[in-house]
Amino acid sequence: MLRPSPHHDLLVTTDFTLEGVHFRREWHSPESVGHRCVARGLSDIAAMGGLPTAVFLSLALPAGLPQSWVKRFILGLTRLARKHGAALSGGDTTQSPHGILADIIVVGAVPAGEAILRSGARVGHRIFVTGELGGSAAAVLEMQKRPNTKLNQNQYRRHFYPDPRVEVGQFLRKRGLASAMIDSSDGLSTDLSHICEESGVGAEFHAEQIPRARLGKSRREVSLELALHGGEDYELLFTVPKSVHLPEKIQGVTITEIGRTVSRRGLFLRTGEKTEKLRPRGWEYFRKP
Amino acid sequence: MLRPSPHHDLLVTTDFTLEGVHFRREWHSPESVGHRCVARGLSDIAAMGGLPTAVFLSLALPAGLPQSWVKRFILGLTRLARKHGAALSGGDTTQSPHGILADIIVVGAVPAGEAILRSGARVGHRIFVTGELGGSAAAVLEMQKRPNTKLNQNQYRRHFYPDPRVEVGQFLRKRGLASAMIDSSDGLSTDLSHICEESGVGAEFHAEQIPRARLGKSRREVSLELALHGGEDYELLFTVPKSVHLPEKIQGVTITEIGRTVSRRGLFLRTGEKTEKLRPRGWEYFRKP
Repeated sequence: MLRPSPHHDLLVTTDFTLEGVHFRREWHSPESVGHRCVARGLSDIAAMGGLPTAVFLSLALPAGLPQSWVKRFILGLTRLARKHGAALSGGDTTQSPHGILADIIVVGAVPAGEAILRSGARVGHRIFVTGELGGSAAAVLEMQKRPNTKLNQNQYRRHFYPDPRVEVGQFLRKRGLASAMIDSSDGLSTDLSHICEESGVGAEFHAEQIPRARLGKSRREVSLELALHGGEDYELLFTVPKSVHLPEKIQGVTITEIGRTVSRRGLFLRTGEKTEKLRPRGWEYFRKP
Repeated sequence: MLRPSPHHDLLVTTDFTLEGVHFRREWHSPESVGHRCVARGLSDIAAMGGLPTAVFLSLALPAGLPQSWVKRFILGLTRLARKHGAALSGGDTTQSPHGILADIIVVGAVPAGEAILRSGARVGHRIFVTGELGGSAAAVLEMQKRPNTKLNQNQYRRHFYPDPRVEVGQFLRKRGLASAMIDSSDGLSTDLSHICEESGVGAEFHAEQIPRARLGKSRREVSLELALHGGEDYELLFTVPKSVHLPEKIQGVTITEIGRTVSRRGLFLRTGEKTEKLRPRGWEYFRKP
């Protein structure tokens, strides 16, 4: 039972995390699976400028799964939820005929009428992204290439322990800075196209300006392809009216201007003097083994 | 986004419905699957005396599932939800590696502090149940016996289209009549034992007084076993202080007194002069093929 604050809108997100689709037991520690489950919902709440308040969990477990797996999964989940002020408040457990299935519900709150939507961008707004892109997808490709080698989770934290940008979302909402916002869960191209479609604008952005993740021991930069289309980074992608001045960092997180909204519908990627129309490519495309 | 009424507590339920565990496509129409999915959550809200307000759906679908299946499933779900005042307000869709997976979240509201809990029964309270028991489990047994024959969904409505007792729950809560309540989703013995454990009491009840469902063409009564242990009837099971007078029907639904709470812990089933201690037997026990 929750007692919502008066004069607040309630935000509810729900996301499946399925073994074999979103994680593999050979690749991901139980703590990482729990962390990544709840990161998805927290990131959705962050993208509306909301404050997470409670987490609910539906869990279906195959017979014979060690109890220790479940304990460590819950630990990873509650640790990240608590960091952002949300408690695990209920749920349901049942037996699964195939693999581990989890559905995570994150409930959040935002002052009535103040949620940042995807539909508020207007022509001429500047487009920003937090942090770096492509890091999570790069880890998935590494694991697909070498399925029997365990990745060092610390070298690929953006995949195993992504950090949803709850504080950045709050900051932008409280000061009324962002006209539209989404989280980069499906990849920059797909998520930017959602903002464009719902706002009725297009977007022009610059390949050189996209902040690419650096990973592994050598801290090498991921490819432009991954930064454009790789998902599950849980960064925030937002638009800002021209008159608004933004700091270089918000709550300690670097933000980068990558382009602006235009009246011509579609995504237009500039590389040097060249401009090409970009087809949004879902993250699913990459994830297929 | 929901705008909760002030001075209300928020109730959130979440329940998995998995193909092969909770339904089979050969046995259940898509409308029935959708209906039964949401009935589980509505019934949980009813058992707290709450009013359902919104439904969220996480759906994972196998490749190649016809779009018409999903449409009919959503139809069954929204029809029952709307009947009880709740709208389908959001969700998530992903691909499933094995079968259809649905998680249904029902959000409800109850005036602050007024939810009926499982823990309020005291020694000497009368125990009541709405409607009839065992009807849903009887249909499952029929289907298991004759897996290639389709049951007539109208003759076994209690299984295919159960009717969560939302209005009865509201009535009991508004008039402050019930000291403890639960819905009979796991079967009478299991659910009554939950009330007993959380209230710190035992229960003595009478085999002859348990209202057994009548089904099939011949309207024959189900066995005592099924009425005691069969789940998924979504009736309400509640306790009432001795001084309270109850009508024979509430909102058109028959209610039946089946026993009373006692100080000795455990469930005690009386048959004529004989009293035996009853071990709660989960519904899972029956459902195994």
